[in-house]
Amino acid sequence: MSGESIRPLTRAAVREIDRRAVEEFGVPGLVLMENAGRGAAHLIQGLLRGPRGARVAIACGGGNNAGDGFVIARHLHNAGIEVELLLAVDPARLSGDAATNCDIVSRMRIPTAPLWDEAGLAANLPRLQLAQVVVDALLGTGSSGAPRPPMDRVIRAINQLSAATVVAIDLPSGLDCDTGVPADPTVRANMTITFVAPKVGFAERGAAAYTGKVHVVDIGAPRELLSAAL
Amino acid sequence: MSGESIRPLTRAAVREIDRRAVEEFGVPGLVLMENAGRGAAHLIQGLLRGPRGARVAIACGGGNNAGDGFVIARHLHNAGIEVELLLAVDPARLSGDAATNCDIVSRMRIPTAPLWDEAGLAANLPRLQLAQVVVDALLGTGSSGAPRPPMDRVIRAINQLSAATVVAIDLPSGLDCDTGVPADPTVRANMTITFVAPKVGFAERGAAAYTGKVHVVDIGAPRELLSAAL
Repeated sequence: MSGESIRPLTRAAVREIDRRAVEEFGVPGLVLMENAGRGAAHLIQGLLRGPRGARVAIACGGGNNAGDGFVIARHLHNAGIEVELLLAVDPARLSGDAATNCDIVSRMRIPTAPLWDEAGLAANLPRLQLAQVVVDALLGTGSSGAPRPPMDRVIRAINQLSAATVVAIDLPSGLDCDTGVPADPTVRANMTITFVAPKVGFAERGAAAYTGKVHVVDIGAPRELLSAAL
Repeated sequence: MSGESIRPLTRAAVREIDRRAVEEFGVPGLVLMENAGRGAAHLIQGLLRGPRGARVAIACGGGNNAGDGFVIARHLHNAGIEVELLLAVDPARLSGDAATNCDIVSRMRIPTAPLWDEAGLAANLPRLQLAQVVVDALLGTGSSGAPRPPMDRVIRAINQLSAATVVAIDLPSGLDCDTGVPADPTVRANMTITFVAPKVGFAERGAAAYTGKVHVVDIGAPRELLSAAL
């Protein structure tokens, strides 16, 4: 969780570290996701210190970024914090580690609300306004280009919030990992919790207005992979 | 990691929480083990603050307690700390989550030394004296009665160390989880990092001389299970 001294990574380097951790070192993807989400939850809890009754809304997409969001939800819930998951993708479409963690939060009965269709958006986008902290777990480093519906709608709603602290997971949804160019729309976060190392795009001109302060969380990938990638 | 306010658990209650987390809530055992080991590694790192070049030896048995030891080894290694695993059980005899984590540390080439036969004990027990911190990941809450060979030999060697800080994982090997009665031998730890909640035996007369200071680490079991068990 130091971060300042870690050299930035490209999208391809991040993907390669993940792949080698799983394939060469046998670290299950679920273990990497758990470390990512637990570390992020710990930082988010730090934001909530003060009056009780804080409420966290986590907006999830359909990939591993959403999986991180589910892990964050579990740990915050276990810590006694009120959490709500807002799902921009029908959970039936999730797969792999994200689906496993979605199944756990569902069995734990952590409240979820759909945002994946028009009715869900109309009914539940206003729920974002009830949260003191809004977590952007919509899109990860793998995505590029302009966010498609309904992601774009959710991102615009997040950017219209006036009081909430917005925390992006890995990177602000819409920001290009490598170029730092913001798509239309891109989440404007107060804080970005990024995994393994900062991303190269974060250092580009203008990106800081989207990332806010960047914190790096270790996901338990063997350190040999980091030395190789940096 | 608060701990003081958490009510103690029996061996049966701990087992039931683990079982229900996995079977009813779908939390993989590997995820619980990762949280346990990562939390413990974090506390152990806290002991090492100060001069660089600290060395940690982790003595592992054959069950899930050993699995926790492997996870601790991974995280300490990733943090740049010199770690050595001393194995009281042939890794070929491990199974399940402990075997998975043993495989990862082996691929990460974290140094291991055998203690599971006479030659290994003779050659490698003296290596315990090289460590500033010795971690007891030999026996967990499931064990009872007098530790059998070679565990007994390893425990006696740990108790003869004069300079090292001894950290027990979950409970000091040899101490009965429920009665707090020490077997002959039982590890005399300076600190016990225990999971989910303190164990009922820790409050019994005389047990504190074996546990040292007790720290509780959260393993990510759904909080509903804790409320039910307490």
